[in-house]
Amino acid sequence: MKAVILAHEQFPDRAKTALGVLRYGDHDVVAVLDRDRAGDRVADHVRDVQDAPVVASMADAPDADVLIIGIAPIGGGFEESWRPDVRAALESGMDVVSGLHHFLADDDEFVALAAEHGGEIDDVRRPPADLGVADGVASDVTAEVVLTVGTDCSVGKMTVTEELARAARDRGVDAAVVPTGQTGIMIEGWGTCVDRVVSDFTAGAVEDMILEVGDDHDVLFVEGQGSIAHPAYSAVTCGILHGAQPDSLVLCHAAGRDRVHGYEEYALPDPETYVDLYESLAAPVHEASVVAGALNTVNVDGDGDARGAVADYETALDAPAGDLVRFADDRERVLEAVL
Amino acid sequence: MKAVILAHEQFPDRAKTALGVLRYGDHDVVAVLDRDRAGDRVADHVRDVQDAPVVASMADAPDADVLIIGIAPIGGGFEESWRPDVRAALESGMDVVSGLHHFLADDDEFVALAAEHGGEIDDVRRPPADLGVADGVASDVTAEVVLTVGTDCSVGKMTVTEELARAARDRGVDAAVVPTGQTGIMIEGWGTCVDRVVSDFTAGAVEDMILEVGDDHDVLFVEGQGSIAHPAYSAVTCGILHGAQPDSLVLCHAAGRDRVHGYEEYALPDPETYVDLYESLAAPVHEASVVAGALNTVNVDGDGDARGAVADYETALDAPAGDLVRFADDRERVLEAVL
Repeated sequence: MKAVILAHEQFPDRAKTALGVLRYGDHDVVAVLDRDRAGDRVADHVRDVQDAPVVASMADAPDADVLIIGIAPIGGGFEESWRPDVRAALESGMDVVSGLHHFLADDDEFVALAAEHGGEIDDVRRPPADLGVADGVASDVTAEVVLTVGTDCSVGKMTVTEELARAARDRGVDAAVVPTGQTGIMIEGWGTCVDRVVSDFTAGAVEDMILEVGDDHDVLFVEGQGSIAHPAYSAVTCGILHGAQPDSLVLCHAAGRDRVHGYEEYALPDPETYVDLYESLAAPVHEASVVAGALNTVNVDGDGDARGAVADYETALDAPAGDLVRFADDRERVLEAVL
Repeated sequence: MKAVILAHEQFPDRAKTALGVLRYGDHDVVAVLDRDRAGDRVADHVRDVQDAPVVASMADAPDADVLIIGIAPIGGGFEESWRPDVRAALESGMDVVSGLHHFLADDDEFVALAAEHGGEIDDVRRPPADLGVADGVASDVTAEVVLTVGTDCSVGKMTVTEELARAARDRGVDAAVVPTGQTGIMIEGWGTCVDRVVSDFTAGAVEDMILEVGDDHDVLFVEGQGSIAHPAYSAVTCGILHGAQPDSLVLCHAAGRDRVHGYEEYALPDPETYVDLYESLAAPVHEASVVAGALNTVNVDGDGDARGAVADYETALDAPAGDLVRFADDRERVLEAVL
């Protein structure tokens, strides 16, 4: 499927969703919209993802099947400056996929344009209507369940989930991803945004997904969210932990991060403390062990220093760890510990 | 305010909300509706709550200001057999208060009757429209914050919260309750049903309530929900723990309960394990200690055996504990440990 990704004024550093789709999606990305970087190419900014031209607006983009909103401003609102591009996409019959909190399918103009030209609007954050409380049965599936957990938000849980699933498939393992956030859902083409469901249904929403695919694969890699020690987001983390009933956990961390992102008055506990917290909290529902660690070293200059940071993290965790994007051998070693 | 409480076919044993309002509300309850027990009195069934006649329908009830739906069927739906009573209440200009998942204000007939006769429909489970993620600032309030936590659902957290607040006020302490569930909200006349909010806003919904009243009182008693080891509801429990940022925890348990209610394949961990789980999970956000325990001995026959169960629980917890409803001296001892 040919896709255009909207990332105005935020590509690449604040365009997490755009990068995720470029790196892991099976879309053929024909253009990225960023009016501040028109004329550049993706490859000028990011390695190891598919390349595409960066253009100023839909008028400069090649024909495509879908427009993906690849950025999320704080608050998740729709920026009116994006309206001409969304309008142009719908007028040409394209679908539009959005992970914004503000649903595009609630916008009268967009709904009318989609109806007129035959496109569809997919708000991936809109929860299914038939959710309910968990039955506590996720561990009944035949697949091994691996959950990425984190020391904080934005440490790379989605990326690690995708990397592990790909590496497992390269070894011939039938691995699937269970996506729980908007970027993972756009990449995988299914899933539920767990942070948007009714709180009582948090575990149930994850359980539903595990049951949906858990007997069709050997291993499920479940995308975690937030952190169990986060002052605002821990409820979602806890619901995923108990709803997914994982067998193994991979603890994701960002090198150098020592305060909660956006909540700087809160120090991050030590990695050992996270291991204890996740394992002891999982145990009454379903025993799970932290079998490996994943360290995001994107902010560490030089591979030597990055190797050092990984070694330190491995020692703190007392488990195999690595940067799964930066070092291919790390990816294999972590996968080995997980399988 | 004069109130009629609807509890058809479920009074008193399956009418938790009705009992809560009878025991702790400041409503003058003029009748309970239960067509199976018409002609009885509340006092025939329950001690230590205000007495009222039990009648078959609104036609037999004295004049009142409000009809309270005092029961919740599994699933939280509205039973059509209650419609004549709700209709009669609205036709007489009464307000109707409901904690059902199914909102009465979405029922066209009820909305029309309320508009015509001047009554109001209050669905206490409907979340406020302006919720957001927590800022992590609940501990900034001047009040001491005490949270009731549990080993399971339905162990008495709401009751313990109300008992502690009343006992504290009897000592001259300016104590307030922060209600997080439908019964507590009906008793207190304000609050947010935390299990109904968007999961990402769980902690934020609690934080908002703490900030709203936390500088106006000496002590806040926050009503907990669920259990941190529950296979379905732990997300809500975790969000309340981190959103409220309590200083002290009271661990509530039901004597003899050793399996998760409704999830019998799950054993309850030991009380010590709960203490470790709650304290270690609270610590990264705000340090909290389990300072006391509350044991619901309603299913223990004989005060001697109940005293024995309390003593065992106290030993397991290594903290003062008691049945705050059954034994007045327990209530004082537990309060002493909390204040």
